[in-house]
Amino acid sequence: MPSEFDLIARHFARPTPQAVLGPGDDCALLKPSPGMELAVTTDMLAAGTHFFADTDPAPLGWKTLAVNLSDLAAMGAQPRWALLAGSLPKADEDWIAAFMEGFFACAGRYGVDLIGGDTTRGPLHLCVTALGEVPSGGALRRDGARAGDDLWVSGRPGLAALGLAHLRGRTVLPDDLRAPCVGLLQKPLPRVELGMVLRQRKLAHSAIDVSDGLLADIGHIAERSALDAEISLGRLPALPENVDPGLARRCLLAGGDDYELAFSAAPEKRGELSRLADELDLPLWRIGRCLEGRGEIRLVGEEGEPASVDWKGFDHFDEEQNR
Amino acid sequence: MPSEFDLIARHFARPTPQAVLGPGDDCALLKPSPGMELAVTTDMLAAGTHFFADTDPAPLGWKTLAVNLSDLAAMGAQPRWALLAGSLPKADEDWIAAFMEGFFACAGRYGVDLIGGDTTRGPLHLCVTALGEVPSGGALRRDGARAGDDLWVSGRPGLAALGLAHLRGRTVLPDDLRAPCVGLLQKPLPRVELGMVLRQRKLAHSAIDVSDGLLADIGHIAERSALDAEISLGRLPALPENVDPGLARRCLLAGGDDYELAFSAAPEKRGELSRLADELDLPLWRIGRCLEGRGEIRLVGEEGEPASVDWKGFDHFDEEQNR
Repeated sequence: MPSEFDLIARHFARPTPQAVLGPGDDCALLKPSPGMELAVTTDMLAAGTHFFADTDPAPLGWKTLAVNLSDLAAMGAQPRWALLAGSLPKADEDWIAAFMEGFFACAGRYGVDLIGGDTTRGPLHLCVTALGEVPSGGALRRDGARAGDDLWVSGRPGLAALGLAHLRGRTVLPDDLRAPCVGLLQKPLPRVELGMVLRQRKLAHSAIDVSDGLLADIGHIAERSALDAEISLGRLPALPENVDPGLARRCLLAGGDDYELAFSAAPEKRGELSRLADELDLPLWRIGRCLEGRGEIRLVGEEGEPASVDWKGFDHFDEEQNR
Repeated sequence: MPSEFDLIARHFARPTPQAVLGPGDDCALLKPSPGMELAVTTDMLAAGTHFFADTDPAPLGWKTLAVNLSDLAAMGAQPRWALLAGSLPKADEDWIAAFMEGFFACAGRYGVDLIGGDTTRGPLHLCVTALGEVPSGGALRRDGARAGDDLWVSGRPGLAALGLAHLRGRTVLPDDLRAPCVGLLQKPLPRVELGMVLRQRKLAHSAIDVSDGLLADIGHIAERSALDAEISLGRLPALPENVDPGLARRCLLAGGDDYELAFSAAPEKRGELSRLADELDLPLWRIGRCLEGRGEIRLVGEEGEPASVDWKGFDHFDEEQNR
């Protein structure tokens, strides 16, 4: 059986042109760019909680990095470096090779060097720390929303959660919907370009990535910005056809695992944001607005009348929702 | 049951004076110091592999951070920031509070801000990423040893492994040895001051932290520096009394979990290193030397004659040694 050190050398170590020193020493060494701040995020993925233990390792490798790059995207940061720590039940070299292939595919797509990591034995867990750069003072934050801002979300929130519901046997998706939903679940595309452009062109006042569910994550913007967020149910992306509409709406509003960006922007940016959607070939939905308030979410119906839903985002320690 | 967000707010979030933005957003934001490189390391600790699942949470919190600071110490870096990701089987608030108390005790001792993290549900795993700073080009690396260098190790390598052997019932330590051995195992003291002084005063050509076992880790210096490392068994720290000498020697040479520093230094630094040991009140043992070679470890006996041992350091994927 290959040793830990052999495995690292064979599958983890690739050239790291953006680092002073890559894997193989006690620490990696980086030279941050002058005038930039460093954006840092970490995510732990546990088998059974975030993915099935028998998940195909190549897309899992992609997703393990992608969910962290989504956090960098939400700050408008340029991804640059990542570290990967893994707890593995056994040294299955085929699994590791496939996983790392997916991981490096994502790293290559977004220009990230894998500069270090750790492997150990234990129930399957994966922990990535991702580092990016953003000009000092320029990061998009959750606490920057202003009363009067529009609220926007990118892409197709809810489809990944429908893919999960399908894989768990809770629904049967029609043929034409299955592949895109499962694809978004297994291989999310972090909105790095969108985040950087929003920051560079000063289009957004605040941003967050949608990982816990659209309402929950917009709730974080509202809370941190000390505003209310009004979501117009009539402005949400259309639900897919031939799917239980209750399930589809729940997935859209609270499904999680979307890795889209939700952001707030001044109303005078509407035209520019429409053009940006075309430029990036990525739908941008204006779904609500920010109002003076105390950090709450308000839902309004087609005619602007108050509406309600009685469930929130995904909470890893909430027994009821994890069943 | 408190939600994930409540738990984070209550136990994870403390002031982060060294960060531009601490926990609570998609990323933390740091402003690296001009002219410095960033040293980054990550370690995953799994219950059952690195610690017993019923380990006292306060010292576990200390150790979870300390083992990462030990990697920073080995580079001569000043610790500054850390991120903590945890997978927990349940939201046991007492456990979390005690764990974080130990974690923050270590963070406070070494001047580290906890700037971010993640919590999820799953079998107990803890993953820390630690970041420190070192002047550009000044880091102590594994690959800097030179032929003719002395080899040194700090502290009392082997005692932590004896503590583990005692806790596992493989030996019974005498009363006077039990507390120091178990103490070093459960609450290691990363040699941050030693690493920084070695770097600042240009006393060492290479360094590594001893986590996998003394011979294995000195082997990494030898391999990365393309030299042989000669270890004089007669120069090793004296084995503790009233302990099985075979076990004690094995713990000393291959026990792991020491978090001492091993380093190479020119022979003309011997006097200065002796004085440094007094200054830091930390034993420094000159245990061997670097020779032209191909990355191998050579053991020599009391009279300089070749000696041998037939076991190596701890490898997490080596079945034989993990039983």
